Amino acid sequence: MATSQQHSGDYVFRVNPNLKGFTDLVFTNDAPEEVASKVDILFMAVPHGSSVEHVPKIAEMGVKIIDMSADFRLKNPADYPTWYGWQHPAPDLLSKFVYGMPELHREELKSTHFVSVPGCIASSSIYSLAPLAKAGLINGVAIVDAKIGSSGSGNKPSISTHFSERYNSVRIYSPSGHRHIGEIEQELSIVSGIKTTATMSAHSINMVRGILTTSSVFVDHDVGMAELWKVYRSMYGKEPFVRFMMDPSGLYKYPDPKLVMGSNFVDLGFAIDQHVKRVVAIGSIDNLIKGAAGNAIQSMNIMEGFEEREGLMMSPMRLV
Amino acid sequence: MATSQQHSGDYVFRVNPNLKGFTDLVFTNDAPEEVASKVDILFMAVPHGSSVEHVPKIAEMGVKIIDMSADFRLKNPADYPTWYGWQHPAPDLLSKFVYGMPELHREELKSTHFVSVPGCIASSSIYSLAPLAKAGLINGVAIVDAKIGSSGSGNKPSISTHFSERYNSVRIYSPSGHRHIGEIEQELSIVSGIKTTATMSAHSINMVRGILTTSSVFVDHDVGMAELWKVYRSMYGKEPFVRFMMDPSGLYKYPDPKLVMGSNFVDLGFAIDQHVKRVVAIGSIDNLIKGAAGNAIQSMNIMEGFEEREGLMMSPMRLV
Amino acid sequence: MATSQQHSGDYVFRVNPNLKGFTDLVFTNDAPEEVASKVDILFMAVPHGSSVEHVPKIAEMGVKIIDMSADFRLKNPADYPTWYGWQHPAPDLLSKFVYGMPELHREELKSTHFVSVPGCIASSSIYSLAPLAKAGLINGVAIVDAKIGSSGSGNKPSISTHFSERYNSVRIYSPSGHRHIGEIEQELSIVSGIKTTATMSAHSINMVRGILTTSSVFVDHDVGMAELWKVYRSMYGKEPFVRFMMDPSGLYKYPDPKLVMGSNFVDLGFAIDQHVKRVVAIGSIDNLIKGAAGNAIQSMNIMEGFEEREGLMMSPMRLV
Amino acid sequence: MATSQQHSGDYVFRVNPNLKGFTDLVFTNDAPEEVASKVDILFMAVPHGSSVEHVPKIAEMGVKIIDMSADFRLKNPADYPTWYGWQHPAPDLLSKFVYGMPELHREELKSTHFVSVPGCIASSSIYSLAPLAKAGLINGVAIVDAKIGSSGSGNKPSISTHFSERYNSVRIYSPSGHRHIGEIEQELSIVSGIKTTATMSAHSINMVRGILTTSSVFVDHDVGMAELWKVYRSMYGKEPFVRFMMDPSGLYKYPDPKLVMGSNFVDLGFAIDQHVKRVVAIGSIDNLIKGAAGNAIQSMNIMEGFEEREGLMMSPMRLV
Repeated sequence: MATSQQHSGDYVFRVNPNLKGFTDLVFTNDAPEEVASKVDILFMAVPHGSSVEHVPKIAEMGVKIIDMSADFRLKNPADYPTWYGWQHPAPDLLSKFVYGMPELHREELKSTHFVSVPGCIASSSIYSLAPLAKAGLINGVAIVDAKIGSSGSGNKPSISTHFSERYNSVRIYSPSGHRHIGEIEQELSIVSGIKTTATMSAHSINMVRGILTTSSVFVDHDVGMAELWKVYRSMYGKEPFVRFMMDPSGLYKYPDPKLVMGSNFVDLGFAIDQHVKRVVAIGSIDNLIKGAAGNAIQSMNIMEGFEEREGLMMSPMRLV
Repeated sequence: MATSQQHSGDYVFRVNPNLKGFTDLVFTNDAPEEVASKVDILFMAVPHGSSVEHVPKIAEMGVKIIDMSADFRLKNPADYPTWYGWQHPAPDLLSKFVYGMPELHREELKSTHFVSVPGCIASSSIYSLAPLAKAGLINGVAIVDAKIGSSGSGNKPSISTHFSERYNSVRIYSPSGHRHIGEIEQELSIVSGIKTTATMSAHSINMVRGILTTSSVFVDHDVGMAELWKVYRSMYGKEPFVRFMMDPSGLYKYPDPKLVMGSNFVDLGFAIDQHVKRVVAIGSIDNLIKGAAGNAIQSMNIMEGFEEREGLMMSPMRLV
Repeated sequence: MATSQQHSGDYVFRVNPNLKGFTDLVFTNDAPEEVASKVDILFMAVPHGSSVEHVPKIAEMGVKIIDMSADFRLKNPADYPTWYGWQHPAPDLLSKFVYGMPELHREELKSTHFVSVPGCIASSSIYSLAPLAKAGLINGVAIVDAKIGSSGSGNKPSISTHFSERYNSVRIYSPSGHRHIGEIEQELSIVSGIKTTATMSAHSINMVRGILTTSSVFVDHDVGMAELWKVYRSMYGKEPFVRFMMDPSGLYKYPDPKLVMGSNFVDLGFAIDQHVKRVVAIGSIDNLIKGAAGNAIQSMNIMEGFEEREGLMMSPMRLV
Repeated sequence: MATSQQHSGDYVFRVNPNLKGFTDLVFTNDAPEEVASKVDILFMAVPHGSSVEHVPKIAEMGVKIIDMSADFRLKNPADYPTWYGWQHPAPDLLSKFVYGMPELHREELKSTHFVSVPGCIASSSIYSLAPLAKAGLINGVAIVDAKIGSSGSGNKPSISTHFSERYNSVRIYSPSGHRHIGEIEQELSIVSGIKTTATMSAHSINMVRGILTTSSVFVDHDVGMAELWKVYRSMYGKEPFVRFMMDPSGLYKYPDPKLVMGSNFVDLGFAIDQHVKRVVAIGSIDNLIKGAAGNAIQSMNIMEGFEEREGLMMSPMRLV
């Protein structure tokens, strides 16, 4: 079942006409608590701050929860005032949720009932930087520059998202203080074992889907490509949804959102800047899939003991 | 197996990096005749005029052929000089090929070994106009206005397809004389039972995938929407890949390529222009799927007795 | 002075940040009547139906009026119920307004105080079809297919103009009954001297600025290119803002909005469809300039006896 | 006069159809030396490495030279092997050329005969970072992340610039080692008085015109917005083509290429990242104007004693 306050009573395919022919499902207006009493797994896709109003009660009802909001991503309650500006009302629940990034938390996912799905920009950033963190290569600040399509900011119309204003624009909508920095620091700190600091500037660009993150890390020694390949391969070599997209003589030399559109892949690349001893870590995802619903499904598959790739092996579109 | 003169020896995923992780297939350089000796079904995707050089010989080898070129689409040899400017060298073969539009030729497809896949603009035009033709509503010229993305013209770089020149452009690349008119007239004549005339102006617009055709037919009597619904439903009501996209109070009121991207659907709509007794027939497809490879696969499924939807139930992407 | 209810008190450059550095003008909230008492010429850019509430009174105040709305475009009061759905409250004023298309009404503009600026799609259609009408070549219905950027529908946000929904879309927002048909028929009838009928299907496409209209006219005899060149040249040969964009061996073979962006030019082209005795007339404008403000300024220049090109000789941008 | 090897004999407006109606100039095939003997000022727009083959001889002919290539941008001959991979053949000439950035070198431009026009990405980077350098705020590496439209890479067709491949892509085409870093370091070092280091990752994004650079500088103390405003205003407060685009409650909160399209403006903004003591410097230009031809014209105006804004006061397009 699928619920929607705004579209209650409407066919899902009226709101998403692309789905015509696939489903006759109708949106209901059940409250989360009602849904929880009828289903095995509840996917919550409500605004930040709204999820935490429902989860404490629902969590006691025995239903499994996969939450898409930010309300249970951060482990340290003190991080909520810092990054979200509010005190967390249910701090005890934070430790019960697993951060739904299968490549980093597969074992925990196998035994949890509660998953908190990572943020989209955070996902691309963490995927590309985690191997460097694990290898002890992030000693200073990890600096992320993010480019993201319009779908990352939801579907609420406004003058700033009006086509005539939004087309052909490149907006730095968050030069600093982006809320996903909290998740990035948390996950990089976990994987590296030491407190890791990050910063980010986030831009919206002229497309609908896709994220590219370009991250800079300054290193102490003269790192080489062979070393980096080893660092990345040792972490992701067997992952079904992580690809290395590095083909110096090919048409696409590095990750590009165009190559993951419509799929659950995260494409990774890296480069060395000898001039200033900088490592460049590049990540690309379809923000609506690997940056959201895809990791939710993959986490569910693990949690339920399903084949991990089930429902997720869509090929990226070639030209779109 | 997959062949390519240009990319022989390369992994398919190097030329199509989106497919990385899906296949380790390598392009070979086998000539069509060599391939024909090894496979059950040969899909030929070579330039117009090139296919006909190979098919006569291959056809005798017992292999089934699904040809993507225009070389076997027209039944009347005299149409080749008219629309393609050359004399057909193997006119006897024309009657052996079935025009690969399952909705119009399903029975013939079941028993053929040779399929000629329709052209992309022709497909959208024929799908939207065929019900009118069948109902005897096309008495004058059917006037098609086509809008098509860049992928319709292949992947050969030139100054006119250079991004800086092609972006934000709206080009009428064929105000008249488009070669697909031949197919359109042929199919509308078959379905209506009388000789039917068509014309077209074709435009390339600012996107990669997708076709929208808007066709005008002048009618003699005051046709009503109920009559048109009956006309269209009686022809396509049970088709798995034809959808009626008409929702006057919805977000998308008529077919739009955005709603079929990545899928094998053809979306249809229609409207009445009381002012001049005109019926407007609207069709939309993803030119690379329902306008090419999708109909090839669907035709194969029918020819081979497979479930017709096999390999084709990709959901269109919602936002792309 | 510039007025705005919504932005009263704001700098013009805050609403149009591109103009920063050009003007320190501030929007006032003066009613049209107040403005009329202070200025020589009043440009009215208010919604259709709103202009006619103010004009009757203002017209008596001695101020010259250039009205951008549709309220005074049609000469025959009976056309308002047909195309706009309301009875015109001031039918006597209709004959006092000159249709602000300098190429067709230059002499009248010289002696009027009241100008009604043509609609954007109507402009492109009329410019391209008028020579055919004048030459007596339009005997049946003139069929217009229009493609227009998002700026043609204003700047009011909605879900249908939300970037994620509007990007990559091709929408037939008006298959029939478009209100500009009234203007088109009026002007073609005037220039031809006989009642002329037109119809249109209008599409919004994936860009912000620009219109391309492709119009079809069926002719009785075998018209040739030399004849058409003569027809078009005799009407527009000396016009400063009309260009013939026809270069069969060039990069741009026909008019393309990309070539008029930011300018007051209308680019015209034509082709012959021998197959069905059809003439194709192609027009392209920047809808915000030649389709609106540009013709307003050009009309003012004529009305005031200024050099007609004053303020209008912006070069179209080459690559945008 | 205008020369072109490829288009010699063609009207300029055939190659640039937007200019039809503006000029009847015809491209000639004169060698630079021939042109130099006929003109007062020679604008050279030839590939990097080609300019230096002609300039030594031409410079002795008394003609003034404004060179668009990189061949005379760097003052230190040793920088050419580092950033361009070749030994400079005329090192003595380097000191005679003035770096054509009027805001930084106005006095030198007044008395020179030789101007070297800055690179496009370098321009946006230097404009946004120079005030910080001058104020002594750049102690570590200045890290530039650049986003640029397709026109930045010229008009030579290739598969990677083919519309179908280039549309909707975000490519990191230079993660490190971009040649403009040499200019950036040179100019920041001059303005700061100390050797300054920079690095850059450059991306091509889904548009034709425009550059946005987002640069990070880590500072030692808690810098405030008032201090930054003073730093930027003291450097650019009276510049005719520098604008501060910072409107926290406005529609465009920071510089955006959409706001400078078609103009000679550089828009600047800045922000403070308290979390890691980072200053974010943002710059935006139309790469084809302020990033190339515009600075060439502005430099010429200064060199010749013309009004500096002559020929450059085009308003940016509002919606494009």
